[in-house]
Amino acid sequence: MSGVIEDTLIEIAIVGGGIIGLSLTAGLIKQNVNVKRSQIRGFRSDFSNLDDNDPNDNLRWVHGYNKRKKEDPFYQQALFKVDAGYHGFDGTRRDRFLEALDKIIPRRIVELKKRLDTIEKKSDGRIQLKFTDGTWAEADFVIRTDGIKSRVRELMFGLDNPISFPHYTHQIAYRALIPMTKAIQALGEYIARNQHNHVEPNANLIYYLVENQTMINTTAFVFDPNEWPDDKVIVVPGLRTDLEKAFAQWNPCFTALIQHFPEKLEKWAVFDTCDYPAPHFNQGVIYLTGDAAHASSPHHGASACCGIEDALCLCTLIDQVNCSLRGNSAITKEEALCAAFIVFDATRRTRGQWLVNSSRRVCDLYHQPEWSDEKKWIKAETCFEEIKDRSLKISHFDYDAMMKTAVQEYAKMLPAKV
Amino acid sequence: MSGVIEDTLIEIAIVGGGIIGLSLTAGLIKQNVNVKRSQIRGFRSDFSNLDDNDPNDNLRWVHGYNKRKKEDPFYQQALFKVDAGYHGFDGTRRDRFLEALDKIIPRRIVELKKRLDTIEKKSDGRIQLKFTDGTWAEADFVIRTDGIKSRVRELMFGLDNPISFPHYTHQIAYRALIPMTKAIQALGEYIARNQHNHVEPNANLIYYLVENQTMINTTAFVFDPNEWPDDKVIVVPGLRTDLEKAFAQWNPCFTALIQHFPEKLEKWAVFDTCDYPAPHFNQGVIYLTGDAAHASSPHHGASACCGIEDALCLCTLIDQVNCSLRGNSAITKEEALCAAFIVFDATRRTRGQWLVNSSRRVCDLYHQPEWSDEKKWIKAETCFEEIKDRSLKISHFDYDAMMKTAVQEYAKMLPAKV
Repeated sequence: MSGVIEDTLIEIAIVGGGIIGLSLTAGLIKQNVNVKRSQIRGFRSDFSNLDDNDPNDNLRWVHGYNKRKKEDPFYQQALFKVDAGYHGFDGTRRDRFLEALDKIIPRRIVELKKRLDTIEKKSDGRIQLKFTDGTWAEADFVIRTDGIKSRVRELMFGLDNPISFPHYTHQIAYRALIPMTKAIQALGEYIARNQHNHVEPNANLIYYLVENQTMINTTAFVFDPNEWPDDKVIVVPGLRTDLEKAFAQWNPCFTALIQHFPEKLEKWAVFDTCDYPAPHFNQGVIYLTGDAAHASSPHHGASACCGIEDALCLCTLIDQVNCSLRGNSAITKEEALCAAFIVFDATRRTRGQWLVNSSRRVCDLYHQPEWSDEKKWIKAETCFEEIKDRSLKISHFDYDAMMKTAVQEYAKMLPAKV
Repeated sequence: MSGVIEDTLIEIAIVGGGIIGLSLTAGLIKQNVNVKRSQIRGFRSDFSNLDDNDPNDNLRWVHGYNKRKKEDPFYQQALFKVDAGYHGFDGTRRDRFLEALDKIIPRRIVELKKRLDTIEKKSDGRIQLKFTDGTWAEADFVIRTDGIKSRVRELMFGLDNPISFPHYTHQIAYRALIPMTKAIQALGEYIARNQHNHVEPNANLIYYLVENQTMINTTAFVFDPNEWPDDKVIVVPGLRTDLEKAFAQWNPCFTALIQHFPEKLEKWAVFDTCDYPAPHFNQGVIYLTGDAAHASSPHHGASACCGIEDALCLCTLIDQVNCSLRGNSAITKEEALCAAFIVFDATRRTRGQWLVNSSRRVCDLYHQPEWSDEKKWIKAETCFEEIKDRSLKISHFDYDAMMKTAVQEYAKMLPAKV
């Protein structure tokens, strides 16, 4: 578990020590409540990482397949760019972001290496969490931020229910960190030195600059028509030759890049909650947030961002719950928390589910069969008006308006002061 | 052809006498230029019609397939609603809208029943239009608003080019005007008396209230896996029994409604420009606008609206061309018109093409196979967050911002005054 926040009025248990759990904990600490938390894992530098000094303000797409200008060995048709948000591409490494959050959070509230076994509501309305090591904790309110494989989905919806588990998106991800010198040799100076997403039928390859622009952090996504054999094991050994086959028809500068992937590499199966979304994100005062509620594939690179928005909304509402409990004797703790959840659900659910669907949709657009048929290129390129709308909906999200609306809607739910 | 606008500085020929041609002509007349125009056809009351007194401010979707509440014979699950724009559902009959526009336009500028044969640029830069009756006209600038089968696409892109022709969307539309009393018997009071779009696998049925709410104007769209045999004949005789087969699995109140379609009815094949969009919407000073440029299927009910936005943008720019020719001797007529077109294209092309794609996309979402599988209903319903965004992008379009941007961008294109 992640922590227990002991406010004078409500105690909150946060289960999960990833970005969402820590963001939420840090947010609540800023409200002067007491917090416990656990399990900082060393996340590997991944998909959403970017060096702070990267000069790019845009997301860019290029044609991974075209070979129109053979006289220029590095030519790849520029397809589209869209501004990357309020601060441009204001990236950080996930592990460093977690370390920075961790510094805000006092040791005493952290329970390390706990593994949740059961959650039960006691007769006094409090929630009891039992762990696999035989210990237990209590809280008024439980927030699950424990990711795509959240055990609480099983507890909430049942072991034989497809809603309890993420499902295979039929995409396999292959990752590599490639030195900039090698990337420039393969792709040319401009394309290598700027973030690009290369699209082609049934595959795309995206990279971000990391480590002070000395490396590109590359992920190739390849469509897999088969079922995934075992959803407990989503990372399996693979070979660069698998990738070479998928990219054989690509622009030659691109196939040169593939040579810098390791000969033996990992195949990551991409899972999400698209096919069986949860009908509700709570069971009484036990809430799901982030990937535990709505696990997205990574094609927007925005799944953690959406979870942080969830955390911001929850922090805002918990602050309101505390204020209303102090000032209004006509409302019980449980009523206040349930009112907050109704507002949270109305504010956040559609955006979380939209992201899951939208990530699938942009992957379909990146992987259009039309990219390999010159007669269809104009048609294929019209997809970027839609991709622009979807990208801006993510990067230009009005979080001030979200917080303001949440506060207003919560106030409407309260009984008049007595 | 539609008309020739004889300004003191530029003459504009508008080819096409539909909503876009008339809107454009009427807009230019307001700028005190002289206009000619032709061919008012009596349009049938169709898909986009609505009675002015309709109280609805929303678009609504209901489940056409579910049978969850057998105790209530009229039950259809309400799925979603979204506000229908600045003025709510501010509808009118297409023929009456055309009549109203026609009253603004003086007879003397109209050339009736002309059929364009060729367009050529003369050595003095003027455009000569030859008609099939042997007559001809000249102008500085030609705007084609002659719809999905625009002859000018053939002239612009060539007879053997798929870009020159609209293509089959694999949807067949069946239409009927049904008296309100019959609609209420079949659907119940509330659903019949409000605009609704009923969705199910591979089909949807939409209606609007017309004739002072005494009738519903109904269109059923049914997926057709086959190719359409002859793109010159897009309306062929059909039978109600075809429709009964497609809707056999629907909610029974719905199959009751089908009984009020005529026994013999027309099958309308739906064509659009989605698969082969035009790479450019002009050839020098000959422009395509509206469906001639970007013909959309009718699933957003917004194809004519988008063409009227085109007309508004063009009127705004032509006004600027006139102003700049009066005030700036450093620019020629052709340079000014070409600058205006570059701005028009940058302002309008992506929106027109987006609408074509978006109409196809919402049809796919309306026709999701998931509607017939109860385990997939939650997934199916998540589509409405996307449908909301698409609907609002149409109905809440900021035309003031469009005009302002067009004026600013045109000013940037002009050489400094000498």
